[in-house]
Amino acid sequence: MNRRKIVKSLGAGGLASGVAAASSFPKPALSQGRQQWRLVTAWPANFPGLGTGANLLAELIGKMSDGRLTVEVFSAGEIVPAFEAMDAVGSGTAEMGHGAPYYWQGKVNAVAYVSAIPFGLTAQEQNAWFYFGDGQRLADKIYAEMGTKFFPSGNTGTQMGGWFNKEMNSLADYQGLKMRTPGLGGKVVAAAGGNVVNLPGGEIAAALQSGAIDAIEWVGPYNDLAFGLHQSAKYYYYPGWQEPGAVLDCFVNLAAWEGLSDDLKAIVEVANRAVNLAVLSEFAARNKESLEVLVNEHGVELRAFSDEILMGLGQLAGEVMNDDASKDPLSRELMDSILKFRATAVPYGGIAEQAVMAARMLPYEFAQPSGG
Amino acid sequence: MNRRKIVKSLGAGGLASGVAAASSFPKPALSQGRQQWRLVTAWPANFPGLGTGANLLAELIGKMSDGRLTVEVFSAGEIVPAFEAMDAVGSGTAEMGHGAPYYWQGKVNAVAYVSAIPFGLTAQEQNAWFYFGDGQRLADKIYAEMGTKFFPSGNTGTQMGGWFNKEMNSLADYQGLKMRTPGLGGKVVAAAGGNVVNLPGGEIAAALQSGAIDAIEWVGPYNDLAFGLHQSAKYYYYPGWQEPGAVLDCFVNLAAWEGLSDDLKAIVEVANRAVNLAVLSEFAARNKESLEVLVNEHGVELRAFSDEILMGLGQLAGEVMNDDASKDPLSRELMDSILKFRATAVPYGGIAEQAVMAARMLPYEFAQPSGG
Repeated sequence: MNRRKIVKSLGAGGLASGVAAASSFPKPALSQGRQQWRLVTAWPANFPGLGTGANLLAELIGKMSDGRLTVEVFSAGEIVPAFEAMDAVGSGTAEMGHGAPYYWQGKVNAVAYVSAIPFGLTAQEQNAWFYFGDGQRLADKIYAEMGTKFFPSGNTGTQMGGWFNKEMNSLADYQGLKMRTPGLGGKVVAAAGGNVVNLPGGEIAAALQSGAIDAIEWVGPYNDLAFGLHQSAKYYYYPGWQEPGAVLDCFVNLAAWEGLSDDLKAIVEVANRAVNLAVLSEFAARNKESLEVLVNEHGVELRAFSDEILMGLGQLAGEVMNDDASKDPLSRELMDSILKFRATAVPYGGIAEQAVMAARMLPYEFAQPSGG
Repeated sequence: MNRRKIVKSLGAGGLASGVAAASSFPKPALSQGRQQWRLVTAWPANFPGLGTGANLLAELIGKMSDGRLTVEVFSAGEIVPAFEAMDAVGSGTAEMGHGAPYYWQGKVNAVAYVSAIPFGLTAQEQNAWFYFGDGQRLADKIYAEMGTKFFPSGNTGTQMGGWFNKEMNSLADYQGLKMRTPGLGGKVVAAAGGNVVNLPGGEIAAALQSGAIDAIEWVGPYNDLAFGLHQSAKYYYYPGWQEPGAVLDCFVNLAAWEGLSDDLKAIVEVANRAVNLAVLSEFAARNKESLEVLVNEHGVELRAFSDEILMGLGQLAGEVMNDDASKDPLSRELMDSILKFRATAVPYGGIAEQAVMAARMLPYEFAQPSGG
């Protein structure tokens, strides 16, 4: 499995005899120029949508390169804890990582803007910003400060507002609320009086069950059902104003990236694009089914945030981000770029996806599947 | 450029001497096992989003395969007219094609359902249906009847309702309207009394300008601006109820597909996934800017279809599809699969993307880009 170590140990002392052996017993073509990478993730093993996204990335790279570059996936804690994946890749302990940008905001503040901004862009708009706006270039600037190359590598779509052990009737209900919610959304909740913590996925179900926290925002129905969060909190709020879309990241050690041939670079980049789409598609397919299970089988109470709460959070979000972005020029550059993109995206969304989704909800009689 | 013809001509007579030459002058590794494919499209050359999507597909396959499989792109009319691309690929004149599924509905009726159903799935939901539902399997069944393998290869996102030379105030205004609108949406307009025609992209601007047609639904602001449709019609209606998302297709001659090695199969499939996402992203980035130009610089009048019109069209859409799907079992299978997926997608969309997009429109004061 660990061919690189074998190659290294050969290189340390046995090179001359190795060359002699090679000339009499030539290696088959497939074993030449192979390399194996380690991919450390911030996810529990095979976790739906997130861990399976990392698995797919490894699978596609191996298949497209015909095994010239194979990638071994490690879940959170196997080599390093979830939130140390970036350090491991930046330092070269692993060549590749998979997580969520705001997990690294303690290292570079601006990276939180790569994940999501509250009341900001949907997944579709975030991808437009990455591939046809300034997103890729700006994110690369941030990730270079951490010794890595960035790829968007999955998106959860619009998240849910979270699980609460009480009804949220006004903005004042955030006062003193102990809540797990990361990134800029967490800063908004803190500004509303909440007591905000961040915890990796693997620790949140226990924290909610023990009462160590009152509320939790994790992802959406598919992931929340997998963790059984409905067993510890009754009210499930929407919409996920804090993350209209939430970007997952793949980060590659800069030296490892530069060492790839052009075709392998293309394979790694295009595999990430495919994973970016696959993860979003998995969430879009599974969230809707999982929500039905939560509501119909587990009696979860679905609640909409009132316009009063959303107005208050929207106002706070603008203030919090203005303050936060003043910390450093890179954060400001990110926020300005996203806000500029958002300025035309919001009204256009209102006449495109949003308007057609509203038209689907009108009470005309529509076709039904036959026999069901 | 046309290596295959050279190889074929060698094969016709000069094989023995070719083998002799090869043994004394071995070819460099890069020239071994190379093949070139022809990609025929239904698009004008380099047409924004559509033609450029086909170009990107060719580029990614060439890069990832390090030139082992190169793809030459031909625009509509270069080898075959737009609507004959499927015949060209099914018969092997070209190995690969790029177009829109409903362009082939005269060959297999069910293929229109692969494009879009009126009041149906958004791009995000269509991708979920392809990759994590029955979409890929069912589409492959249809395309196999045309001698090809199917890949989703781009999506326009929610289209606009179209350009009209008069205001649309009630459903009765469709009576006698000569309109270009393809696919199932066209059948709904016909049921509302419209006189429906289909025309390839390259012919629609002239038809609208000459008055041969009264109304046109092409794609959305990015493409419509490129064709100058605002010069011939005043009113621009939304939402695009007929295509909440619209799938573009890549189709590969079945024998050519089966002849690929496993790594090249993976490269072609993953390249299509990347193109699928890139095209949608390009539309999401450019539509919003183009709409601003249309409204602010060209004085286009943006109009919403009334709820009364949408209710009437929604009712008709259900009836038309029920009739249409009764024509053959494959159409019924497609429609049932999409309707089943839609049954949970619509309410879930209402609390996810749709709800967060509505929350963005609330009148709180939000952050603004600095200096702008």
